[in-house]
Amino acid sequence: MRATYMYGPGDVRVIDVPDPVLQQPTDAVVRVVRSCICGSDLHPYHNLPATPGGKTMGHEFIGVVEDVGREVRTLRKGDFVIAPFAWSDGTCDFCREDVQTSCRHGGFWNANGVGGCQAEAVRVPQADGTLVKVEGGADPALLPSLLTLSDVYGTGYHAALKGGVSARTTVTVIGDGAVGLLAVLAAKQFGAERIILMGRHKDRTDLGVEFGATEVVAERGPEGIAKVRELTGGDGTHVVLEAVGHLPAYEQALGVVRPGGVISRVGVPQYDEAPIGFGTLFLPNITLTGGPAPARAYIERLLPAVLDGTVNPGKVFDRTIALDDAPGGYRAMDERTALKVLIAS
Amino acid sequence: MRATYMYGPGDVRVIDVPDPVLQQPTDAVVRVVRSCICGSDLHPYHNLPATPGGKTMGHEFIGVVEDVGREVRTLRKGDFVIAPFAWSDGTCDFCREDVQTSCRHGGFWNANGVGGCQAEAVRVPQADGTLVKVEGGADPALLPSLLTLSDVYGTGYHAALKGGVSARTTVTVIGDGAVGLLAVLAAKQFGAERIILMGRHKDRTDLGVEFGATEVVAERGPEGIAKVRELTGGDGTHVVLEAVGHLPAYEQALGVVRPGGVISRVGVPQYDEAPIGFGTLFLPNITLTGGPAPARAYIERLLPAVLDGTVNPGKVFDRTIALDDAPGGYRAMDERTALKVLIAS
Repeated sequence: MRATYMYGPGDVRVIDVPDPVLQQPTDAVVRVVRSCICGSDLHPYHNLPATPGGKTMGHEFIGVVEDVGREVRTLRKGDFVIAPFAWSDGTCDFCREDVQTSCRHGGFWNANGVGGCQAEAVRVPQADGTLVKVEGGADPALLPSLLTLSDVYGTGYHAALKGGVSARTTVTVIGDGAVGLLAVLAAKQFGAERIILMGRHKDRTDLGVEFGATEVVAERGPEGIAKVRELTGGDGTHVVLEAVGHLPAYEQALGVVRPGGVISRVGVPQYDEAPIGFGTLFLPNITLTGGPAPARAYIERLLPAVLDGTVNPGKVFDRTIALDDAPGGYRAMDERTALKVLIAS
Repeated sequence: MRATYMYGPGDVRVIDVPDPVLQQPTDAVVRVVRSCICGSDLHPYHNLPATPGGKTMGHEFIGVVEDVGREVRTLRKGDFVIAPFAWSDGTCDFCREDVQTSCRHGGFWNANGVGGCQAEAVRVPQADGTLVKVEGGADPALLPSLLTLSDVYGTGYHAALKGGVSARTTVTVIGDGAVGLLAVLAAKQFGAERIILMGRHKDRTDLGVEFGATEVVAERGPEGIAKVRELTGGDGTHVVLEAVGHLPAYEQALGVVRPGGVISRVGVPQYDEAPIGFGTLFLPNITLTGGPAPARAYIERLLPAVLDGTVNPGKVFDRTIALDDAPGGYRAMDERTALKVLIAS
């Protein structure tokens, strides 16, 4: 089959590799129908040390079950499935507590002998726990939105859920990437009436407004903080959803969160130490929360509104490419000429 | 009247000063019946720069209203009242959101012209918002427990509340000072069935066991972390209540919190930057919360069980002194020969 590999910064190739096969009785093999490129794929695109053997890529996909191991009970060949960005057994205590990303027998794609889904097919460990079947298959028009359930929609939803967004909270979203925009959508679903979106790309923030943002602040840093404070009577908002991951975004979050409020981070932190002391978090009683979304937990919760068209998170995809064009897809996302690139296998 | 002043490290004196008087129409003057020395008073006891004019001390008291300003509506001379460790108007949006420590017209004792309560009397700003009246006065036997509602009981309760302690969560409490012990009591009230108390002073941890701790870990640092992990099958506990405030206590919290869990800090942080990145908080989906307790919000909530004797948080006081003996009280707390010193005016 064809599969996307990365060999170093900027070096993405689509190559021929053996088809994946069942290795464990709990595995499935899934033929990928749609996958995509994630903002987090740009981190290795910038920083991957030279990797002569290449590194598999991709952690978001929907597809059709091609084969199942003998212990797989809930899936069969031909089922249409959504895969979350982490695989998990669905039965351990962490899974039952909806922390599937800490599953005792789970893991992440592209690690420990598990491949990536920017490919024609992929082996899925712990298939019963990991995959969510869409009864009756999928309407082709819904494929982009279904694909967002793999990661970016669930991640935006995680931000809003952990942030405690409700009709009584004002919200700032930091970042106009796919996750930030879907954090806006999720905040709207949780009932927030005021959602300030901080982002600099007008085409993206326009989509944010369509998703529910009530105000857009294009400024960053101290100017951006001043603008949000000006919009909120000097106080900031009850909740800040941080969908970037760089330290300045965290500092921006500190600057726009209201006393008693919550900073909910879903941008993967690119820093280790940061201010959390008396003046920043403690005195104003700020809560810092977030982490990798238990996307698996949210797929079933978010699926109905996707299926009935109430929400259309798939609008974050603004370019579709063939698998063999993956290198160009990475380039487009890196150059910000594309918001999020969908790969139609 | 007599009042306690601090002039520099270790330099506490009880001196004669003018009686406090009403300054604002919303003020009350309260004759102090009981006050006490707080663990946080030891910070200036160690670090206060030389202060020739002296600094007033004390932020926890119960007493009897002696005089009220003309705009005070809910209190009158003779009322027995409990004062929280911050004063607040009770009407602004932050007060309504139970973040009274961020009140728009509030503040802290011993600052901005408001005195301290390690004294015979004190002027109380925003008296209607700040003070909670105990109907019918107070049983003398209950005075110590009523006094804990000023700060340490509310602070322990804040830790447990913000930590989301329930019958479904395991809990570690870091610190065997009055706040840590009352965090144990609060965790027990929230239904926790397993409460591991980390503390080195047997007389204190014995009281912690009486309050509901199910296990005591005397080790600190890596040894303490290893011990808690050993007790919890390697995983740590769902909630960690951090009642110390020094960086090693935060690092200990990181070491004993379970994936998906919460670190709730009520020890005033003596550090600014600390690890909150991918490996520490983000990947395991740890929430960091806490801050100064809105003690005012909790007094009414916690008062009934104090009045009917269901709980006896006043047991944290293990020494009672006269006001003029305040210097010795500070010394005893600093030398750890006393857990918490009550001042009987």
